Amino acid sequence: MHKLAIGVLGASGYAGRELCELVARHPCARLVFATASDRQGSRARFGGQDVAFVAAEDARLGDAQLVFSALPHGASASWVRAAHDAGAKVVDLSADLRPGNGIALGSGSVPYGLTELARDTVRGAEIVANPGCYPTVTLLALLPLLVRGLVAPGATITVNAASGVTGAGFTPRRELMFAEVADDFRPYAIGNEHRHLAEMRAVLASLDCDADLIFTPHLLPVARGILATITVPVTEPLVDVLAPWREHYEGEPFIEVSAEIPSLRDVVHRNVVRITATMAAGVRAPTVIIVAAIDNLVKGAAGQALQNANLLLGLEETMGLPV
Amino acid sequence: MHKLAIGVLGASGYAGRELCELVARHPCARLVFATASDRQGSRARFGGQDVAFVAAEDARLGDAQLVFSALPHGASASWVRAAHDAGAKVVDLSADLRPGNGIALGSGSVPYGLTELARDTVRGAEIVANPGCYPTVTLLALLPLLVRGLVAPGATITVNAASGVTGAGFTPRRELMFAEVADDFRPYAIGNEHRHLAEMRAVLASLDCDADLIFTPHLLPVARGILATITVPVTEPLVDVLAPWREHYEGEPFIEVSAEIPSLRDVVHRNVVRITATMAAGVRAPTVIIVAAIDNLVKGAAGQALQNANLLLGLEETMGLPV
Amino acid sequence: MHKLAIGVLGASGYAGRELCELVARHPCARLVFATASDRQGSRARFGGQDVAFVAAEDARLGDAQLVFSALPHGASASWVRAAHDAGAKVVDLSADLRPGNGIALGSGSVPYGLTELARDTVRGAEIVANPGCYPTVTLLALLPLLVRGLVAPGATITVNAASGVTGAGFTPRRELMFAEVADDFRPYAIGNEHRHLAEMRAVLASLDCDADLIFTPHLLPVARGILATITVPVTEPLVDVLAPWREHYEGEPFIEVSAEIPSLRDVVHRNVVRITATMAAGVRAPTVIIVAAIDNLVKGAAGQALQNANLLLGLEETMGLPV
Amino acid sequence: MHKLAIGVLGASGYAGRELCELVARHPCARLVFATASDRQGSRARFGGQDVAFVAAEDARLGDAQLVFSALPHGASASWVRAAHDAGAKVVDLSADLRPGNGIALGSGSVPYGLTELARDTVRGAEIVANPGCYPTVTLLALLPLLVRGLVAPGATITVNAASGVTGAGFTPRRELMFAEVADDFRPYAIGNEHRHLAEMRAVLASLDCDADLIFTPHLLPVARGILATITVPVTEPLVDVLAPWREHYEGEPFIEVSAEIPSLRDVVHRNVVRITATMAAGVRAPTVIIVAAIDNLVKGAAGQALQNANLLLGLEETMGLPV
Repeated sequence: MHKLAIGVLGASGYAGRELCELVARHPCARLVFATASDRQGSRARFGGQDVAFVAAEDARLGDAQLVFSALPHGASASWVRAAHDAGAKVVDLSADLRPGNGIALGSGSVPYGLTELARDTVRGAEIVANPGCYPTVTLLALLPLLVRGLVAPGATITVNAASGVTGAGFTPRRELMFAEVADDFRPYAIGNEHRHLAEMRAVLASLDCDADLIFTPHLLPVARGILATITVPVTEPLVDVLAPWREHYEGEPFIEVSAEIPSLRDVVHRNVVRITATMAAGVRAPTVIIVAAIDNLVKGAAGQALQNANLLLGLEETMGLPV
Repeated sequence: MHKLAIGVLGASGYAGRELCELVARHPCARLVFATASDRQGSRARFGGQDVAFVAAEDARLGDAQLVFSALPHGASASWVRAAHDAGAKVVDLSADLRPGNGIALGSGSVPYGLTELARDTVRGAEIVANPGCYPTVTLLALLPLLVRGLVAPGATITVNAASGVTGAGFTPRRELMFAEVADDFRPYAIGNEHRHLAEMRAVLASLDCDADLIFTPHLLPVARGILATITVPVTEPLVDVLAPWREHYEGEPFIEVSAEIPSLRDVVHRNVVRITATMAAGVRAPTVIIVAAIDNLVKGAAGQALQNANLLLGLEETMGLPV
Repeated sequence: MHKLAIGVLGASGYAGRELCELVARHPCARLVFATASDRQGSRARFGGQDVAFVAAEDARLGDAQLVFSALPHGASASWVRAAHDAGAKVVDLSADLRPGNGIALGSGSVPYGLTELARDTVRGAEIVANPGCYPTVTLLALLPLLVRGLVAPGATITVNAASGVTGAGFTPRRELMFAEVADDFRPYAIGNEHRHLAEMRAVLASLDCDADLIFTPHLLPVARGILATITVPVTEPLVDVLAPWREHYEGEPFIEVSAEIPSLRDVVHRNVVRITATMAAGVRAPTVIIVAAIDNLVKGAAGQALQNANLLLGLEETMGLPV
Repeated sequence: MHKLAIGVLGASGYAGRELCELVARHPCARLVFATASDRQGSRARFGGQDVAFVAAEDARLGDAQLVFSALPHGASASWVRAAHDAGAKVVDLSADLRPGNGIALGSGSVPYGLTELARDTVRGAEIVANPGCYPTVTLLALLPLLVRGLVAPGATITVNAASGVTGAGFTPRRELMFAEVADDFRPYAIGNEHRHLAEMRAVLASLDCDADLIFTPHLLPVARGILATITVPVTEPLVDVLAPWREHYEGEPFIEVSAEIPSLRDVVHRNVVRITATMAAGVRAPTVIIVAAIDNLVKGAAGQALQNANLLLGLEETMGLPV
């Protein structure tokens, strides 16, 4: 069978390696290059395939029908343009082209690839901005309430999220060493200082939601996974609290709505979001508690990127994605 | 030197063992009995001292000047009474006598031993109800706002807390086995179902705070420690946000207020609470984010119990407590 | 396509669940029953398939073309016979029918399913005794030296192995709780007291090796994986030390011989053994150090069992097995 | 009370920070400087005391009565000399002056500070070479057999040891990041390539033991602790196998001999070695299995260094050391 040619820019980080692994195991794709500026010449195995890292400058962008960019924020946009100019479709995993970040690629806008929200736009696009990991889990958790207008006007939505350390990248730093992270747990960027807030706020605004967001990320002593616990004041008590999610996501292959409380082990190494919700007891303002979990490297990065790539390439959306 | 005689009821669980360890290392105390219904006859070492567990029925309660009860909720109150009838002062670590739990010990009320709130009442008491681990960290974090009337009227306070697994006890259960907890993270009792809520609400009410509470506990893949991330709508923006905590807790030996974000490793094996606070940026309703951390077995259980015991016995409050 | 009917006895333990997962994802098999005496009536999901546990007594053994028994040692042999009498082929994961354990199933012997050693015997069998996890990694590591007569006569082979806690089973026990295992490491059954020794010695003897074994297992604070470090006095220095392994295992789909030192992360969730070897420097008696790693639940249990089942059923040996 | 002035060179690594913590809590010592070339100007808290790191060049060596050097191997020896020339006694935690490393400090030899072996020599010394972590646990485990001549002539002693990651230092490296170490286990320096072998062999030779050593270190997914499992062919079966250890270490404050198998949790944060031993069953050559455990940062580094410093300074050997 003829396999589609895929390239990966920034292949040596955690998201990049996950991309290479998914591409190498994809039934209709093959990896034509993997760039890693700090490791050029070294080799790695992905899906049983031996791959040599090259410098981005040496990658033959034009050989690829689709290029993933997992380059760092700031460095990605120009490579996205170069790959596109060379004739490839592009999924950009960096924040550069996401809403709220203010970088535009010439004329025309780049769709925000939260697939379950923007599937139709993505399908016809040339370039897609893949969502951040925290926005993915947060926005997919909130979407059914947002589109139904169930969030109380002027409300404050509180998002507490905890992520495994692969979310912090593969560059060696003291605070990411094993002996520093093990047995510990701590928030960071408290007081609404995380850069993912702009992305989440832009999407909320685009859906006519005027709620304020308070977002506090935490670092977990685990390698993978994000779990978000979200409190949302709603316009009225929801009698069948899960109904908005069950209806909204009916037939979605990668969204699991359940009365069971999600946990990281339910979702790691899978391209899914698991969601539950319940009404808070004993409070005057009707409030929903939502819990949602993803694998930050799969549905929160490489998996969703491949989901978008499948759409760009006219393939089955679920192809090559672990469930 | 003459050492005070101390007994521990329920000594084989995590809190009970921590109590025995603290008593064995205390400069003015000695352990006269340690009961463990399921392990009578077996021995353990605490502070270099070899101790034999006995059945509670065989403990000579009258030999102790002070008894700690770390018996299970429901089973503790009657033993507290028995120890008191035998002439001992008692610190009860169970929930039985805490506010909001509705058990009373005959005439007279038992003070709630959140030491930094109730030091003077504790000093003159015969029996003290030691606070739960989640209420300890939550209430000490909120106290400066509560007593200053800074919580916005009718507000909803959101408490997200995460605890190490020793908080779930030492009885073997499948969901507490290593291979189930490692690499995982999950909330439980979502929707305000945790039994510690009654205790927290009772204290808030006693301080004339009408706020609603939403409390969501989580299970962390660590042995020890609790970290709480709390959002509190306030009456007005706090210019010097840490000032209420610095003022309120000035001179307190076990409370550390800092601009640094606390983490579990700052507090484990220590009888302290570490607290920081910041205003949330980019929201219309002025809101404070507080982060506080304790060791659930020390300041959240055995350490605070010993702090109270020191007061009951007329000793220096800090004696024998690790900082 | 017609799928072969497979039953699993003892499906609620770690090995049993791994078996159900592998069967549910197998391209040519389907799960017809899964028994769990302590969980009958409860349900679980395997490979996206919803499965109800039944009591072993209620399992229709005759509906299965092949039955896996992951029942406890001692309880398994009679069910193996019952399944065989009902017409099924059987792979027994318990120790009951392994060499050195002294249980025989009427007339005829049951082959020991160390697949790479006994492939041809397994292929024609009705019942197979699946090897233990420690023997699998140890014997596959030693095999090339054994069959070439390279072990020094009268030598003592020292095996130090460390296993993740799933190797200790899913029955709740205090010493397997998270807070007891985390941050710890310890040997057990020291002094050659582990029951797997009989199995290893029997295989060594069958290969005419007279070496003594010293086997010390250790418990690791990880969920999965076994790594064995083995020292073997040899008849002469091996110039190309990896040559015996490369030759012996040429073409084997599940054995990876490499100059890189194996680690658990190389093998978890995969049906492989990774092996390296080197000569010890600075010693008078020529000695090889072998390091080998497996996933105790895959190549050390359910994966090897499925590898054997594929042979019993006339399927491709590698079918449905993760590499 | 007058406190002795202590300086720490190389205070920002794991061993250096442990030293600062021990000195700050020592009843008769105070920290007069702590150097950290990469962190000068930054501050840290040790034992409740706020300390500013300075460059080694700015440390007033002459202000200290005793200096600990936790500088890297190779860089330490010249600073040891400088501190000694300035009038301080010195405990060097680097390998520079240990036996087998070939660096000498002018005339006179520096005693090897394995305290339980060399207490009397240390007491009168000016400079002490503190043992490495692996040699400490290995040699203290072997000592009773060595001095009694119980090791079989020409034998091969096999040492398998596993260490927490703090043993690999505090310099950020990819292979020490949390997501790389968690859930993993692997040996390194296999084939007798570890630099601690020279130190162990030199001590064995000094005790007239002609045995060969095979030493294989492993990296554990824990922060602290070393456990060694050692097999030793002996001249004859030991009837009372623990007797050599009980006799040899009678009265030693930091050595715990027990029939219980040691584990890391028994020793972390304590300046002790725990040891057990048993005869291997079912082998022809009588062989002892010894298991010994230490905290690599305490008895394996900073604790033993302070034990030696107490002797150099004429203090009680156990002062300030956690048991």
